[in-house]
Amino acid sequence: MFSETIELRGHIIDSLILPKVLDQILTRGATFKIAEIKIGQKRADQSFARIEVGADTSEALNELVLRLRQHGAEVVEQADARLATAPGDGIFPDNFYVTTNQQTFVRIDGREIEVQPAMMDSAIAVNSAKGIARAVKFFDVKGGDQIVVGHQGIKVSPVQRSTSHTDLFQFINTTVGANEPKAGVIRAIAAELQRARTAGGKIAAVAGKAVALTGAGEYLQRLIELGYIQRFFTGNASAVYDAERALFGTSRGISTDRPLPGAGHENHLRAINVLRALGGIQAAVEKKVLTSGIMHTCIQKGVDIVLTGSIRDDGPIPGVTTGVVEAQKIMREKLTDVSHVLLLGTVQHSLAVASLLSPAVKTICVDIYPAAVAHIVDQQPFHSIGLVTDVEPFLRELCEAIANPAKSEAKRALVR
Amino acid sequence: MFSETIELRGHIIDSLILPKVLDQILTRGATFKIAEIKIGQKRADQSFARIEVGADTSEALNELVLRLRQHGAEVVEQADARLATAPGDGIFPDNFYVTTNQQTFVRIDGREIEVQPAMMDSAIAVNSAKGIARAVKFFDVKGGDQIVVGHQGIKVSPVQRSTSHTDLFQFINTTVGANEPKAGVIRAIAAELQRARTAGGKIAAVAGKAVALTGAGEYLQRLIELGYIQRFFTGNASAVYDAERALFGTSRGISTDRPLPGAGHENHLRAINVLRALGGIQAAVEKKVLTSGIMHTCIQKGVDIVLTGSIRDDGPIPGVTTGVVEAQKIMREKLTDVSHVLLLGTVQHSLAVASLLSPAVKTICVDIYPAAVAHIVDQQPFHSIGLVTDVEPFLRELCEAIANPAKSEAKRALVR
Amino acid sequence: MFSETIELRGHIIDSLILPKVLDQILTRGATFKIAEIKIGQKRADQSFARIEVGADTSEALNELVLRLRQHGAEVVEQADARLATAPGDGIFPDNFYVTTNQQTFVRIDGREIEVQPAMMDSAIAVNSAKGIARAVKFFDVKGGDQIVVGHQGIKVSPVQRSTSHTDLFQFINTTVGANEPKAGVIRAIAAELQRARTAGGKIAAVAGKAVALTGAGEYLQRLIELGYIQRFFTGNASAVYDAERALFGTSRGISTDRPLPGAGHENHLRAINVLRALGGIQAAVEKKVLTSGIMHTCIQKGVDIVLTGSIRDDGPIPGVTTGVVEAQKIMREKLTDVSHVLLLGTVQHSLAVASLLSPAVKTICVDIYPAAVAHIVDQQPFHSIGLVTDVEPFLRELCEAIANPAKSEAKRALVR
Amino acid sequence: MFSETIELRGHIIDSLILPKVLDQILTRGATFKIAEIKIGQKRADQSFARIEVGADTSEALNELVLRLRQHGAEVVEQADARLATAPGDGIFPDNFYVTTNQQTFVRIDGREIEVQPAMMDSAIAVNSAKGIARAVKFFDVKGGDQIVVGHQGIKVSPVQRSTSHTDLFQFINTTVGANEPKAGVIRAIAAELQRARTAGGKIAAVAGKAVALTGAGEYLQRLIELGYIQRFFTGNASAVYDAERALFGTSRGISTDRPLPGAGHENHLRAINVLRALGGIQAAVEKKVLTSGIMHTCIQKGVDIVLTGSIRDDGPIPGVTTGVVEAQKIMREKLTDVSHVLLLGTVQHSLAVASLLSPAVKTICVDIYPAAVAHIVDQQPFHSIGLVTDVEPFLRELCEAIANPAKSEAKRALVR
Repeated sequence: MFSETIELRGHIIDSLILPKVLDQILTRGATFKIAEIKIGQKRADQSFARIEVGADTSEALNELVLRLRQHGAEVVEQADARLATAPGDGIFPDNFYVTTNQQTFVRIDGREIEVQPAMMDSAIAVNSAKGIARAVKFFDVKGGDQIVVGHQGIKVSPVQRSTSHTDLFQFINTTVGANEPKAGVIRAIAAELQRARTAGGKIAAVAGKAVALTGAGEYLQRLIELGYIQRFFTGNASAVYDAERALFGTSRGISTDRPLPGAGHENHLRAINVLRALGGIQAAVEKKVLTSGIMHTCIQKGVDIVLTGSIRDDGPIPGVTTGVVEAQKIMREKLTDVSHVLLLGTVQHSLAVASLLSPAVKTICVDIYPAAVAHIVDQQPFHSIGLVTDVEPFLRELCEAIANPAKSEAKRALVR
Repeated sequence: MFSETIELRGHIIDSLILPKVLDQILTRGATFKIAEIKIGQKRADQSFARIEVGADTSEALNELVLRLRQHGAEVVEQADARLATAPGDGIFPDNFYVTTNQQTFVRIDGREIEVQPAMMDSAIAVNSAKGIARAVKFFDVKGGDQIVVGHQGIKVSPVQRSTSHTDLFQFINTTVGANEPKAGVIRAIAAELQRARTAGGKIAAVAGKAVALTGAGEYLQRLIELGYIQRFFTGNASAVYDAERALFGTSRGISTDRPLPGAGHENHLRAINVLRALGGIQAAVEKKVLTSGIMHTCIQKGVDIVLTGSIRDDGPIPGVTTGVVEAQKIMREKLTDVSHVLLLGTVQHSLAVASLLSPAVKTICVDIYPAAVAHIVDQQPFHSIGLVTDVEPFLRELCEAIANPAKSEAKRALVR
Repeated sequence: MFSETIELRGHIIDSLILPKVLDQILTRGATFKIAEIKIGQKRADQSFARIEVGADTSEALNELVLRLRQHGAEVVEQADARLATAPGDGIFPDNFYVTTNQQTFVRIDGREIEVQPAMMDSAIAVNSAKGIARAVKFFDVKGGDQIVVGHQGIKVSPVQRSTSHTDLFQFINTTVGANEPKAGVIRAIAAELQRARTAGGKIAAVAGKAVALTGAGEYLQRLIELGYIQRFFTGNASAVYDAERALFGTSRGISTDRPLPGAGHENHLRAINVLRALGGIQAAVEKKVLTSGIMHTCIQKGVDIVLTGSIRDDGPIPGVTTGVVEAQKIMREKLTDVSHVLLLGTVQHSLAVASLLSPAVKTICVDIYPAAVAHIVDQQPFHSIGLVTDVEPFLRELCEAIANPAKSEAKRALVR
Repeated sequence: MFSETIELRGHIIDSLILPKVLDQILTRGATFKIAEIKIGQKRADQSFARIEVGADTSEALNELVLRLRQHGAEVVEQADARLATAPGDGIFPDNFYVTTNQQTFVRIDGREIEVQPAMMDSAIAVNSAKGIARAVKFFDVKGGDQIVVGHQGIKVSPVQRSTSHTDLFQFINTTVGANEPKAGVIRAIAAELQRARTAGGKIAAVAGKAVALTGAGEYLQRLIELGYIQRFFTGNASAVYDAERALFGTSRGISTDRPLPGAGHENHLRAINVLRALGGIQAAVEKKVLTSGIMHTCIQKGVDIVLTGSIRDDGPIPGVTTGVVEAQKIMREKLTDVSHVLLLGTVQHSLAVASLLSPAVKTICVDIYPAAVAHIVDQQPFHSIGLVTDVEPFLRELCEAIANPAKSEAKRALVR
């Protein structure tokens, strides 16, 4: 029997840290003895636990401790992190430490250095001289970089749940299902975004095709005009659907004004051709060819636009980043100073963006498919809210709640 | 090779009757020869085709002709329908003819009699003396009744598509998917319902749990107050969720006002207890205990309420029909004079209601689950519209479009 | 500030009881102080916590304590439960206590009596003289019965998670999603069912239409023949689809042998007519008219069949319970001695059955719709496993794993 | 009133061409008069119709005729196609003709030239001197190329349905839903693929993450070993999940052997690092580091692998095409000689591949999400079959049916 002693600190009970740690231990067939436990007497107080963990093999114990550290467990004997040299550009040394999206510290020369940015699925590159630790993706690493290996000297500080009960993001399970009321949540999201803007926070919107196709764009434009969106992420197809409506009155050949669907993909291709001929969206706006739509409003209001490509794209239009690695670099850069993200009707872009976010960023995910919402919310369980609903009426109601909170409350009266 | 000659009449091409007939023939390995074809030269003209059908066995030919008759084919040699005696109450004779939901005529003593009501999955009971033919369910038939057997002497007149291109219900594929714009369709539905009411049509609403649980009830109440709903079909649980909100401010323990879900099923049971103690919803309204909600509005405005039970119910409350056969009888009776049906967020009740409708009734089906919409719309492909969207914002927008069509058109302005 | 002291006992940490209690307190804006905590030093040891809870109003405190009791909290000052008289048949007194599906004890004359059966959404009727406490539904209660009111004198003992790590049902999140491997879980389910049968446990299967329609029946029959199913719950439509296949080779008009769907609902109605004419399934088997299918195998092997009706049914066939309240009584009775339940492709029947189960019963829920699985598993999070997969291949693989565990392991070889 | 005369030829009735044409005319508020109609008297005979179409404006008539041409209508006055010069690389002239995925002919100097390849959403570049017409994407066109504009001189030959009733792909509606039997269809697919291979056809498999994650890979490998797969398309993540299982025994941290999910994304990243360090999959196989899995089998058996990237990727591994436009070029090239495509559990790749296919290629689409199947099958309604089922048991059963057709038929016996 091999054993090690770990310690937990913080809101370890109501943030579910202690139960999760014990759950991992039992699930993996290991044993534990709680050597000491001190639980905070009040909401704001910190708790503490020291636990001896035992497993049958040294390997099993190591793997277990690795998991426990991701829940914030520290091994008691403090030691410096071990470093190894990256053998080449884009290649990590064997046994490199893989980050979670939790705040992470690495112990170098007896000092704890915070890894920045907090970003999941990265390695940690250390510059001991400068006392800097960076989370690095494969495309960041250069041969010769010093990379953390093993799990010694790493401390993870898991997100602690807010203890304020006015906070929208405090609940464990924050998906509002198809059969649950959403009006109240949407008003609370409006209030949250208003607080965020007042405090100088930056808000990103990530939009799937449903936004342009369902006619939800007009509400997104209104949010942009009201100053609620600072970054806009979407794909080539969505940008073109938006331009198609501005140029030809349709999106994927379908007009929002006619009662029922028409047909056809030609306008989509013609819109691409127009934008290619003019040199892109910015040029089309400047030349007054593109005079409405989400992209037009973004450019008018100075919103940063990030357009990325996929293998399903026609075109693409100028301005789309067609290399997926280059696209990730741009996305990461444009997300560094964002405080809130709206993920609207897209699994592909939402997961790509969510994987680049620090754990402090709050996300609101809206999709009509329950499986899509569940998949995305899973990435950041403490700071995300999922709504299973149609994205067009969601944006309409959010817009009303922001533009005129009193009228939104009194919407029954409006109807009469 | 066995063969028979069939004839088709009506809008056999643009209503897809001819292609479907040929499709059936080919699919079943039979052969055809078009002996004569005359196609209407204008939209309003009728077409005609005479086709010789051949199959390897007499049995296969019979089964094939049976199918073709359901698409409106007539066999050329006219003959009276054959009748047999029902051997006992609730039992049909062998080989009884099974109705579709198309308009059906049966030839008795050389005369064609229309079967009434037009209702699918029934047998046909004939009273030759009175010249009457009724569609009968198992529970309708009595021992000794004369029932049509075989398929001789039966003529089916399939629904012909409207040739007016202003009609919402004219399209072949009328499901508006998750990624399609719905604002225009909802305004068209509003206009359709307004025309229906002006013409004296009666509208039924069939509501699943989502209506009460998501807070959509207030919009349904508004439709009732505006005189747009004459029949209301729902289950025990939905009626109780509605009463629970009226009595305790929650539905299934969840308040619409608080931003995020609470928990609990107690209020549901307490609401049932209150209604059982008072003797039902009508009594609770009269005693001024129930003073708001959908059920309250129905009673205030004289809407016919049909409450049915299921094996998942708690309670049930007085007024719920707990026998499923008795419930079908009541539902059928309350649907006889209805012209339009709104099917809102329920597969169970929607399919039960749709199976009792005549083919002339128009249905609008709304559900957030694409599979639910597809399943329900399949029952009446020519006279139904399906929308894959959240039922609460659907009703909100429908309500706005009906209450104030001009404001609805100008809703962009409203937001600003 | 009003306050009360509560105590928690058992595996309060790794069964998530303590975190959930603290979560409830914070969520409702109340405060807590942990007066004492003692955590078991080993897996098998019990833990203990004494917590002072404070709230702004007496009402809020009462409601909060009510919630906490459902997580197993006891108020420290022990007192007898309060009783009130049921004012009439089928009516509870105001403020009746509503059970959860946890093991519950009620204190009468200073003694703790276990409420039986453990069944959610019921009231508790007490016979003080006999020292008996029963969970009663609305249809059970008689005027004059003594019913527990308020929450004083009630102790709830929540399900504690298994501490054995070989147990399939020990995990917190036990839904296997669409994109996860299922072969291993299915083998583990096979082993669990084998252990259950060896220990004399009784297994119920609850089957939706998908079972008969997809041709999964043959695998269910094999399970019955192998002695793995003692109770069979299904609806009228499913029983008829099964008989239709036995009588005419189709289910809902579709043959499993032909490559692609045919059409038609007639055989369904003819099968109903045959069974009505003969007097039901049992009679049809005895008269050798029904000679194959699930129902036939059930009758041959003496499996208890429970058939219930819904408003969507045609027929129904003799033997179907058409009153929904009567159906619940029969279902409850047939579930009392069951240890495991397979919930196969039906939301309606699965939720009805799950609401009648004691918390000790283990459930395995299989459905191709993720939302259906999530909805059903929510009812019994600790003792249920959900699989998002097609029910036909699930039963095929389960059958193979039970009939021939070695061959199942070696199925790769089989393929070659 | 403006009018034009169109002609239709071929199986215009049972291939639904005539009804669709009339439907378009009515839907758009235009009028028609059937000047002449001649319908083939036998299955193999061609039909003919001449129709005068009228509309209110010349513009509306033009747009309508454009649609009708996509259904195969020809305008009677034959004229050469009009050409215009591409104004620059990657830019088409205004009003360029947009191809469908139907076989298309363009009239140049009085001769009809077939456009090759038949590929949707392209323009047509004509080399009059060589008598060649090519379908060109934006990335294909060079400044100065002669591009077809308008719709004059274009003839489209829509796919005609097979008149053989043994053909799996002859049906109009070919999606097998969640509640329908699949065993027969899977055997028919097996037979179709066997015929295809016997005839020298090439089969492509397009695999989403579900294939590697659910453990379905072993069945795909078996199909490869049996010579049934010549091209393999997948994404970076799927290839890595497959390698992760080969290297570490897990996919996305989950082992197929253990009964229930573990956790973790590290092995995914370690697998990427191993493959980057070695220089890719081919090298890893050669160096005997990668010794099992789908990718290994592909390389052993000489299957062409096409790996494409997305913005969600980690890594990527060497060999992945990270530029989306370059990826499309490679995909198109590798699809030119393919006769059948299996689309397995991926919307993204399936739609990308389907958009590059000629209409003669037959596709089989399998996904557990009904909406995904519907979306993909929509692209090629006549030559595709959709199955709503779990991909792992689908491949298992397909594999059994191919490897041992007799055993597959007798699988009931196997179970016993």
